[in-house]
Amino acid sequence: MKDFDTVIRNGLIATAAETMYADIGIRGGRVVALGQELARGRDEIDARGKLVMPGGVDAHCHFDQPMEDGLRMADDFLTGTRSAACGGTTTVIPFAQQIKGQSLRAAVEDYHRRAGRKASVDYAFHMIVTDPTPEVLREELPALIAEGYSSFKIYMTYDDMKLDDRQILRTLAVARRHGALAMIHAENADCIAWLTETLEEAGHTAPAYHATSRPMAIEREATHRAITLSELVDVPILIVHVSGREAIDQIRWAHGRGLRIYAETCPQYLFLTADNLGGGYEGAKCVCSPPPRDRANQRVVWEGLSDGLFTLVSSDHAPFRFDGPEGKKPGGKEVGFRHIPNGIPGVETRLPLLFSEGVRTGRISLNQFVSLTSTNPARLYGLHPRKGTIAIGSDADIAIWDPDKEVTIENGMLHHEVDYTPYEGMQVTGWPVTTLVRGERVWDGGQFCAPAGHGEFLPCGKPEMARPRPQDTAGGHYVGNLPDALAKLSKAGGHAA
Amino acid sequence: MKDFDTVIRNGLIATAAETMYADIGIRGGRVVALGQELARGRDEIDARGKLVMPGGVDAHCHFDQPMEDGLRMADDFLTGTRSAACGGTTTVIPFAQQIKGQSLRAAVEDYHRRAGRKASVDYAFHMIVTDPTPEVLREELPALIAEGYSSFKIYMTYDDMKLDDRQILRTLAVARRHGALAMIHAENADCIAWLTETLEEAGHTAPAYHATSRPMAIEREATHRAITLSELVDVPILIVHVSGREAIDQIRWAHGRGLRIYAETCPQYLFLTADNLGGGYEGAKCVCSPPPRDRANQRVVWEGLSDGLFTLVSSDHAPFRFDGPEGKKPGGKEVGFRHIPNGIPGVETRLPLLFSEGVRTGRISLNQFVSLTSTNPARLYGLHPRKGTIAIGSDADIAIWDPDKEVTIENGMLHHEVDYTPYEGMQVTGWPVTTLVRGERVWDGGQFCAPAGHGEFLPCGKPEMARPRPQDTAGGHYVGNLPDALAKLSKAGGHAA
Amino acid sequence: MKDFDTVIRNGLIATAAETMYADIGIRGGRVVALGQELARGRDEIDARGKLVMPGGVDAHCHFDQPMEDGLRMADDFLTGTRSAACGGTTTVIPFAQQIKGQSLRAAVEDYHRRAGRKASVDYAFHMIVTDPTPEVLREELPALIAEGYSSFKIYMTYDDMKLDDRQILRTLAVARRHGALAMIHAENADCIAWLTETLEEAGHTAPAYHATSRPMAIEREATHRAITLSELVDVPILIVHVSGREAIDQIRWAHGRGLRIYAETCPQYLFLTADNLGGGYEGAKCVCSPPPRDRANQRVVWEGLSDGLFTLVSSDHAPFRFDGPEGKKPGGKEVGFRHIPNGIPGVETRLPLLFSEGVRTGRISLNQFVSLTSTNPARLYGLHPRKGTIAIGSDADIAIWDPDKEVTIENGMLHHEVDYTPYEGMQVTGWPVTTLVRGERVWDGGQFCAPAGHGEFLPCGKPEMARPRPQDTAGGHYVGNLPDALAKLSKAGGHAA
Amino acid sequence: MKDFDTVIRNGLIATAAETMYADIGIRGGRVVALGQELARGRDEIDARGKLVMPGGVDAHCHFDQPMEDGLRMADDFLTGTRSAACGGTTTVIPFAQQIKGQSLRAAVEDYHRRAGRKASVDYAFHMIVTDPTPEVLREELPALIAEGYSSFKIYMTYDDMKLDDRQILRTLAVARRHGALAMIHAENADCIAWLTETLEEAGHTAPAYHATSRPMAIEREATHRAITLSELVDVPILIVHVSGREAIDQIRWAHGRGLRIYAETCPQYLFLTADNLGGGYEGAKCVCSPPPRDRANQRVVWEGLSDGLFTLVSSDHAPFRFDGPEGKKPGGKEVGFRHIPNGIPGVETRLPLLFSEGVRTGRISLNQFVSLTSTNPARLYGLHPRKGTIAIGSDADIAIWDPDKEVTIENGMLHHEVDYTPYEGMQVTGWPVTTLVRGERVWDGGQFCAPAGHGEFLPCGKPEMARPRPQDTAGGHYVGNLPDALAKLSKAGGHAA
Repeated sequence: MKDFDTVIRNGLIATAAETMYADIGIRGGRVVALGQELARGRDEIDARGKLVMPGGVDAHCHFDQPMEDGLRMADDFLTGTRSAACGGTTTVIPFAQQIKGQSLRAAVEDYHRRAGRKASVDYAFHMIVTDPTPEVLREELPALIAEGYSSFKIYMTYDDMKLDDRQILRTLAVARRHGALAMIHAENADCIAWLTETLEEAGHTAPAYHATSRPMAIEREATHRAITLSELVDVPILIVHVSGREAIDQIRWAHGRGLRIYAETCPQYLFLTADNLGGGYEGAKCVCSPPPRDRANQRVVWEGLSDGLFTLVSSDHAPFRFDGPEGKKPGGKEVGFRHIPNGIPGVETRLPLLFSEGVRTGRISLNQFVSLTSTNPARLYGLHPRKGTIAIGSDADIAIWDPDKEVTIENGMLHHEVDYTPYEGMQVTGWPVTTLVRGERVWDGGQFCAPAGHGEFLPCGKPEMARPRPQDTAGGHYVGNLPDALAKLSKAGGHAA
Repeated sequence: MKDFDTVIRNGLIATAAETMYADIGIRGGRVVALGQELARGRDEIDARGKLVMPGGVDAHCHFDQPMEDGLRMADDFLTGTRSAACGGTTTVIPFAQQIKGQSLRAAVEDYHRRAGRKASVDYAFHMIVTDPTPEVLREELPALIAEGYSSFKIYMTYDDMKLDDRQILRTLAVARRHGALAMIHAENADCIAWLTETLEEAGHTAPAYHATSRPMAIEREATHRAITLSELVDVPILIVHVSGREAIDQIRWAHGRGLRIYAETCPQYLFLTADNLGGGYEGAKCVCSPPPRDRANQRVVWEGLSDGLFTLVSSDHAPFRFDGPEGKKPGGKEVGFRHIPNGIPGVETRLPLLFSEGVRTGRISLNQFVSLTSTNPARLYGLHPRKGTIAIGSDADIAIWDPDKEVTIENGMLHHEVDYTPYEGMQVTGWPVTTLVRGERVWDGGQFCAPAGHGEFLPCGKPEMARPRPQDTAGGHYVGNLPDALAKLSKAGGHAA
Repeated sequence: MKDFDTVIRNGLIATAAETMYADIGIRGGRVVALGQELARGRDEIDARGKLVMPGGVDAHCHFDQPMEDGLRMADDFLTGTRSAACGGTTTVIPFAQQIKGQSLRAAVEDYHRRAGRKASVDYAFHMIVTDPTPEVLREELPALIAEGYSSFKIYMTYDDMKLDDRQILRTLAVARRHGALAMIHAENADCIAWLTETLEEAGHTAPAYHATSRPMAIEREATHRAITLSELVDVPILIVHVSGREAIDQIRWAHGRGLRIYAETCPQYLFLTADNLGGGYEGAKCVCSPPPRDRANQRVVWEGLSDGLFTLVSSDHAPFRFDGPEGKKPGGKEVGFRHIPNGIPGVETRLPLLFSEGVRTGRISLNQFVSLTSTNPARLYGLHPRKGTIAIGSDADIAIWDPDKEVTIENGMLHHEVDYTPYEGMQVTGWPVTTLVRGERVWDGGQFCAPAGHGEFLPCGKPEMARPRPQDTAGGHYVGNLPDALAKLSKAGGHAA
Repeated sequence: MKDFDTVIRNGLIATAAETMYADIGIRGGRVVALGQELARGRDEIDARGKLVMPGGVDAHCHFDQPMEDGLRMADDFLTGTRSAACGGTTTVIPFAQQIKGQSLRAAVEDYHRRAGRKASVDYAFHMIVTDPTPEVLREELPALIAEGYSSFKIYMTYDDMKLDDRQILRTLAVARRHGALAMIHAENADCIAWLTETLEEAGHTAPAYHATSRPMAIEREATHRAITLSELVDVPILIVHVSGREAIDQIRWAHGRGLRIYAETCPQYLFLTADNLGGGYEGAKCVCSPPPRDRANQRVVWEGLSDGLFTLVSSDHAPFRFDGPEGKKPGGKEVGFRHIPNGIPGVETRLPLLFSEGVRTGRISLNQFVSLTSTNPARLYGLHPRKGTIAIGSDADIAIWDPDKEVTIENGMLHHEVDYTPYEGMQVTGWPVTTLVRGERVWDGGQFCAPAGHGEFLPCGKPEMARPRPQDTAGGHYVGNLPDALAKLSKAGGHAA
């Protein structure tokens, strides 16, 4: 038996299912042993009094996407993954966005160029499909799925990205046939447009009206519609960044019908409210979509974490500076809410916020925390068991936490390039003190210490669904035999189940 | 006290709320007395052993609409109202359809020309808004509402008629401001298009696949979306021709939230199923949208009639010949389901079918029958109390029924110009034996006997809603103050209630 | 044609379905003519500027029931019906309560003795079944139903009255077989007992804790259970005095399943909240069961009136004096909430409160007001069309309202014998100015003026259900063939539909 | 580093969260190492091509309970645990049942005597509370909970065991205060009694009528009631043996309200239907409560396993012989369904059935299988991480499966003492080939081989809830301060959330 490269000793290990005292033996960047009193490693980490957890998987974050109108994302793969690593996250999945008219492969290739050798943590790509031409659907998308880009996002809103329902159906049919996972941004574009024009006619353009222009009902409507499209194609989907009760109720309703609808939420729906968009132009800092709701909705989202409605918590890190020419005040000027770029930073604060207010208060268990932030996203996107766990054979992507560390969040302590954090001044207990990616320390002793270009690209496998559908009711033949299946559907006047 | 023109004597009168033995005194086309042993009239009708009810109001029927592609509706105002009169219906409300590019007023004027002096029963017009330009919304629509065209239909499907959600919102805002009623055809156009292309790719083009291409889920989705649009604008809407459980469940859900969503169904959802579209090309006779579902859904629709979910039952009479060059076999040839004109005839059979299977079986009461087929449509469209009842001052629009008459429906006995009826061979008990419009017999002794051009155009008043909303929660000022109201809405993360 | 005894001229008549200007001709206590410019009557009432409506039917009120523990109801048939008449109500249905051990017939006979010749408005009896012995179920109850006592109340709470579920099922089976209507008081007795003992152990005995001891959840539970019992026996029931959202949601759910569950509410759930039980011992004045909830629940109850969920509004007048030895302060002493007699007065204020806040604000229409307070209760309990309408042949039970009269409610102006009203100081617009019972004025010119003993006992016919169930799914043979029907039920794992 | 006692090598380990190839090192009955190429053990097990999973935890089974009426359970701790071991189950939790009048401690002591030294797998006890006297609630129950009997069952039906709602509330309050878990058998006793008497009056006594007498609606009702009682006390509960859609819908509804309602189901609701009770007296073999439903309900139960509604799958093994004097034909004679002892055997078939039809078809994942049958029950009852997983420090309770072994179930191959299995003739794929309890083989090579008396009693810790409730909304102070909490409750007219 060979020596270990590294041994993490005496910590309390928490995974999605277990909490145990054991040492971890690492060799070649992988976990090769778990046990009591393991043999020595060349490097020894004493985790006594610490929690040892799988590093976080942030499956929804935006770095260095091409932008229009002179805007620019503040974080690229260098600063974005640096911020992730310092917050205990060891895998990120940002978005290769197709520009309308562009081929999807070109978008992916461009995004690899942007990633370069900058990343300090491992990364995969989601795609964003904005132009599902016959060529894209027939050739590019299947090929890219097979190459390890097995998830893509569909927008139901934003003029430059949204698909209409027919395009969504065609794209979902590809997801079904080739085993990819579609992520859906569910807000009704036309409703937003009408409310925006109505508000602007009345002279209401302050950032607070961003929330007014996107009430819960329009997220609920789009959620219901997305569920219907998923039901027609009989393919699972993920509703991303769910903000409150009405959308949650739709998802519960779908579950009661046996539909495989996964749901994601984000810290902004647990910690912010629409009031954070008020108070003058500073409110622009919290402009994101869907907007944060109110405290009653926060409670409902917490319940959804507790009872398993949600599969994962992501950051939706979308980094724009507040000051300066390329961000929330584009050209340095206050603009109407319609023109404020949507999104807030959060890749570094995601885990500490959820740990402090979720685990320490008892809203969720420690194992649920690991599931929601690491194991489930890894499973959902085909990265498990390489990522998302501490198990024999898995990558040694590990976050060691001081569960009692008290921290007041200030932007100065964070490692992104955004000039603010929406969580400024919040007090949390618990913070990662050491982060390892494939056995190498990338964050330790309060210092970012990743070897240059340590992060690697991860081709994703088939999404590993939490709720597969039995072969006898849906089967692989469904799409191939769609018309007959639909014939049954229409007579029943209803859905397949 | 003057003599009566006509007295109907000894009948059992049934209105929406009462069932009583009384004589009816008519003078000047109006009911002027109800009582026992009324003085004589110049004309005396003995209704002993008969039911005396308000004539039917068929608020959803299509006559002589301009068609494309060489199609032609088989009934115009002459034959359509003749068929109505012979089936006990005394008021019809067909549709003045705007052609895209056409002004709405031009559509109304054209439709008056088509009506000419042909009608034998009274009629009002709904409009169909297909092109809500700023001019239409700002000028034409408000003016036409004020002139007595206070209801209009919006299509969420059919390429040549459908509005997108933003157009619907703008149009509903006009309905709210000016007190009109919007009728919504709720099916998701994109879903139908995708299912149609999928079916066609598989070579499935028989009439039966019309039902396959429009499963319940896509009606449910559009119903949910229509409810959301109604909620955002805070204006009541009517969902027309609801076909089964899933749409009904959405409407119940809306009622539970305090939203004013009215619902209509039609005999085809009570008496036909998707099986009627099978059996070869003959199935084209029953192609309509939404398609009939199955028997379980029929039961749910009956329950909705019984428990008050539905406000009215209309025919959706849409008359196309099966044979001949202008109808279901356009150019006399069998075509794919996509090309079969949608719609079935039913203006004459609506009342007997519902009476026989509804009232005689006890599913609905006699008073509910009158409400659903006469009083409620009159109220909903601002024609009550002139129409829809037998009360002092009301028009003497009266149907006298033999409740025990046994009839086997055959197309030969009907008075429309369509060459088939979907209800061929059905046996019913009860049929109108005499119909009066404003005191004049138009159907009597088995003969159509209306004086030429007896029917008059009816300007509609403000819709009289069954469920007005209290002034303190919505108020007349809501739209004027929309942004502030919406601000409240978004904070609550939800709807106004 | 003979002369009229009375003609009411020039008023605006409102019934459940119509609103019309017409004169009313009365002869022999009945309406015999409706028309314009009727011939003269010996008595002429000018109703110009007034509303002329069917007198109210208060189907839930308590007069002179035998009480234990030295308590006494403050109103008997004399004062109770006087108060009713002065508030526009022309028919009351109080309760003949069986004492455990007593025969049901004895209870009915005793109650006739108590009624004596005291009543000024007509009255029927509900029974209260507290001891459903085999004798009662097999002999007495069927006989009494046949004699015109066709409704009875079942309590799920109160130690001296409650039935257990098995007793309820047996009693409902009699209702089904003999066509009676069961009214259910739905609160869970055991839960109340446990909460009461828990509160008392903590020293919480003030009147406000009455509400604490009966939270909405226990009304919801009993409502769900009552629905289940009704479903098993397949017989309609009426849930009385529904107080808020959670019970309403259960009833909506039942409607969605096709079950015939009727619902009643009372002014206390529209105008009072649990706060009215606070503020010291004065709160005892508003102790009733279920207790009033909060303003959000009031809104939900209003919605249920508006959208047709509720069939009727009753007063649940249960008259106890606050001061004096026999009422809310029994023996003149403050007692723990457990010992305060439940119930509040309201037979006289029911109609004006609902008119003012319901009709004048637009929450319900004038016709809905008549339905809910007069026509529907008359139909539900087999008194229609004799009662509950203004139609040819109906009793001339009529309330003439000044719709613009502004009144500040004070107990001094009311005609009951209770020494307070829960609505003291409320301002309403609209009040009955003249009440006729079978053509005789009983309230006019601000004076109670009924001829002594004018009120008559009314045998009730079969309840006329708003939602009969079709013969083909339930039929009259169901109970006779119960086991087979149940066999079908169990295989489906569910309910009959 | 010391040698291992045993090493299981080359297997594919599956836990609730992981699936990995690793060796397992066992020492002193515990897992002490997981890793690649572990050092040798004195005993080596080659698991190549096998699945290595935590042994099953069957948290609902009945052995050797005291019975009345000459009945006797066929399995005691010897044969019951033998059957468990041979089916891959390593921990069982049968029931120490209080007889009315008996002290709870006496029941527990008696049950320890019955267990003796007979067991071959480890075991804990649930209690059954049938007589919650003040003494029991104040003294015995708290003391027993503290000693490791931290769960108890409450029956809502069965005359000799059922508690009324007030007793349930008092007992749940103890569960809340002392951190125990209450399991609820939810069927409405009165409804069953009424249906039974109705069926018997009609002469319907065959076993098939057992299902008729307990339709889904009465399980739904009791489930709703149990949820309400849980909500009032604010304590989690477990609904045991849930049989189909209507009960599941109630549980989903509770989850949507944030209530902690756990749910269990059993193989009989996945593999049997009410039809299995037909076919003459043989149907008695499948008489259990609730009864199996139909195939549509089976599908809904599968969905609930797939989507996480259910926390665990247990056998509810209740062993009665069909022939012989003490079982299904008591005294060897056919009896009416009321007299057939309820329950079916299943402790040995539970895992293979669920594996074959659940995992192999893709309805649930391998990890879900482990969760539902082992990890979750261990967590729920405070036995985790000692039981229910393969982790460092856990007991080496391991089942090694041949996932491809094809087996036709016959009673002759099973190791219980019952003379039939309801699953006779079913074909399954996958069966445990070796079972270890604390490192010792108890089933291997097709032979039961446990050392005599190997099984040990397990005191249970506090139930580890999957969905703890945040401290800030419920807190440990709730019961101590119940009246104030309830005061808040009643104003809101609803539940705590």
